Amino acid sequence: MHAVGLITEYNPLHNGHRYHLETAKRLTDADCTVVVMSGNWLQRGEPAILDKWTRAKLALQAGADLVVELPVFYATQPAHLFARGGVELLSALGVAQLVFGAEHPELDFGRLATALAGASGDFSHYNATYATQFNAALKAATGVTLTHANDMLGFCYYVANHHLAHPMQLLPIKRQRVAHGEEKIADSHFASGTAVRAAAFKRDWVAIEPVVPASTLIQLQTQRLQCWDDFWPFLQYQLLTVNVAQSGQYDQMAEGLEYRMREKAQTATSFTDFLHQVKSKRYTYTRLQRVATAALLQLTQREVQTAQAHNYVRLLGFNATGQAYLHQVKKDLPVPLYTKINKDLRLHGLNLDYRAGRVYQLVNGASQDLYRQPWRL
Amino acid sequence: MHAVGLITEYNPLHNGHRYHLETAKRLTDADCTVVVMSGNWLQRGEPAILDKWTRAKLALQAGADLVVELPVFYATQPAHLFARGGVELLSALGVAQLVFGAEHPELDFGRLATALAGASGDFSHYNATYATQFNAALKAATGVTLTHANDMLGFCYYVANHHLAHPMQLLPIKRQRVAHGEEKIADSHFASGTAVRAAAFKRDWVAIEPVVPASTLIQLQTQRLQCWDDFWPFLQYQLLTVNVAQSGQYDQMAEGLEYRMREKAQTATSFTDFLHQVKSKRYTYTRLQRVATAALLQLTQREVQTAQAHNYVRLLGFNATGQAYLHQVKKDLPVPLYTKINKDLRLHGLNLDYRAGRVYQLVNGASQDLYRQPWRL
Repeated sequence: MHAVGLITEYNPLHNGHRYHLETAKRLTDADCTVVVMSGNWLQRGEPAILDKWTRAKLALQAGADLVVELPVFYATQPAHLFARGGVELLSALGVAQLVFGAEHPELDFGRLATALAGASGDFSHYNATYATQFNAALKAATGVTLTHANDMLGFCYYVANHHLAHPMQLLPIKRQRVAHGEEKIADSHFASGTAVRAAAFKRDWVAIEPVVPASTLIQLQTQRLQCWDDFWPFLQYQLLTVNVAQSGQYDQMAEGLEYRMREKAQTATSFTDFLHQVKSKRYTYTRLQRVATAALLQLTQREVQTAQAHNYVRLLGFNATGQAYLHQVKKDLPVPLYTKINKDLRLHGLNLDYRAGRVYQLVNGASQDLYRQPWRL
Repeated sequence: MHAVGLITEYNPLHNGHRYHLETAKRLTDADCTVVVMSGNWLQRGEPAILDKWTRAKLALQAGADLVVELPVFYATQPAHLFARGGVELLSALGVAQLVFGAEHPELDFGRLATALAGASGDFSHYNATYATQFNAALKAATGVTLTHANDMLGFCYYVANHHLAHPMQLLPIKRQRVAHGEEKIADSHFASGTAVRAAAFKRDWVAIEPVVPASTLIQLQTQRLQCWDDFWPFLQYQLLTVNVAQSGQYDQMAEGLEYRMREKAQTATSFTDFLHQVKSKRYTYTRLQRVATAALLQLTQREVQTAQAHNYVRLLGFNATGQAYLHQVKKDLPVPLYTKINKDLRLHGLNLDYRAGRVYQLVNGASQDLYRQPWRL
């Protein structure tokens, strides 16, 4: 059996994602579709609208054969680290091909990545101005600038892939019509995740129905929907009580930002108000949301970096095909395979994902790790 | 002018407290009644049912002339430290006499304190088994055991007074009929604070009306009433996310208790359930509540001990008599006098009280420090 891989968030799963899944299968003629999906906290530093179990089930229902979780210490990171975590997991699972959506799939990502690898310094460490520095170096080396989110992410997949002992084949495909982050549902069949979420919080099912699978619509209609405002009381409380010596250790915190966050938390009236108050030219909203996520989860930079060196495969679900594929690759897995949590994993191996899920559960109400087993569809 | 002092919590102010105020004036014929009152967090490790401003106003309405706050780093401590903080403040304010209620005012507290001072080791540091150790030493030195809460507290006033350069005169009076902590309102005129709070949460105004001043009844009927359950979501969140290396530093945390608290926080369904689960023979409920308060406020032992060495007079309110008295003693105050908070005090001098109030405000909704000025009645 050979497998094709996808790196996803499914926040929530919509027709664009289904198209991605179907195209990946068609292009590669793979026997198995392996999906790496962010857990309850996402790359832009926000909670998922539906929890990871609901989203993993939707992925299986949409055609994925095997769904594994991208751990929180990769899922809530800048593009290059998010990409690295996902690529590592697909490679660990013996996946031969990675299919991803890009705004400009015609770009020669491979050449750009090779050129930058030769021209640039070290981009593997977290850096506040990574995107800017990176684009400056890329422009100097190749004359090209990447300004679209998924082009950038695609490029990062190539860079990460470049570091593998056995690189995968990477296949960019054209994203369907809507721009990433587009806020309104205008098209008849496709819409961005942002637009779907906005409509879901308004409970505008009529707008959503044409652009998502029926199973997604049902979940949105019946499950609790999470957003940052739900977690704001906890974040505010945390910023009001924590010592700045401690909050200064949070992942992705910038020099002095811990003081600014503490100050603004005193009087902010909502998460949106807080972000507006903290915002300055030095930080993007996405960056601030990621720091807020780290603060909420009390994730320190040290914890995150240590955990990144110990990646693992956490199963969220599979069907018969996925199970057969897993059986085939299991003995050669270079990282641990976790199917169920136990006390040791809760306190050690899976402690950051457990913590991230436990905080999510404070709002969502559903256990995210304890007593959970992978879906078998 | 000469002043009499009282050390109080007023949770909430009831007829027993009014009797205490009136008796203190009558006994001492003082020109001014100075009340030291706990702020929003109390000696038994719980939030006050009414905030400090409401309770300070009730104190003034009940006959106090000057009300100052017992800082959180003394208010939420075991009896001997609570007593020391209060005695220090009264002494700093030039108070000559301290009147307190005891179950057995006929006890020769002065002799006991002197005997213990000679016989015992160091009781000035926090110790898990302070009460037990203390009673063993007291019994050995004097043959007496103190088993009632206010006898014990009274004794602690004597010990603290003993250390003053100019000790005050201490006057124990008999507490009126109801036992401290008695849970039901049975008497026609007096009830314990516990009983009043229980009735208030049931909104049983008929039961409360005979045992509190009219002004207290109105406040209970119109203000938001706080209890631990209100703060439980924040405490649980904190215990779920904090590193045990950090929570192990919280004030009054015992060896290993931080692990036990983290474990029980995973599944506890309420503050009461949490306490029941954490409870063991080693810790009293009061002790656990104090640790929970420190955890909620993220007060470390180091912060508390440092702050205790820098006590201050924080004004909550006064009338014309209190103002005149304050004017008389102000120039000789051995500690700072704070009437209003500013940014420097918020971040430094008053930072622990500010933090304690800011967390209380998350539930209560009313600013506890910013924009607040002492009542002038």
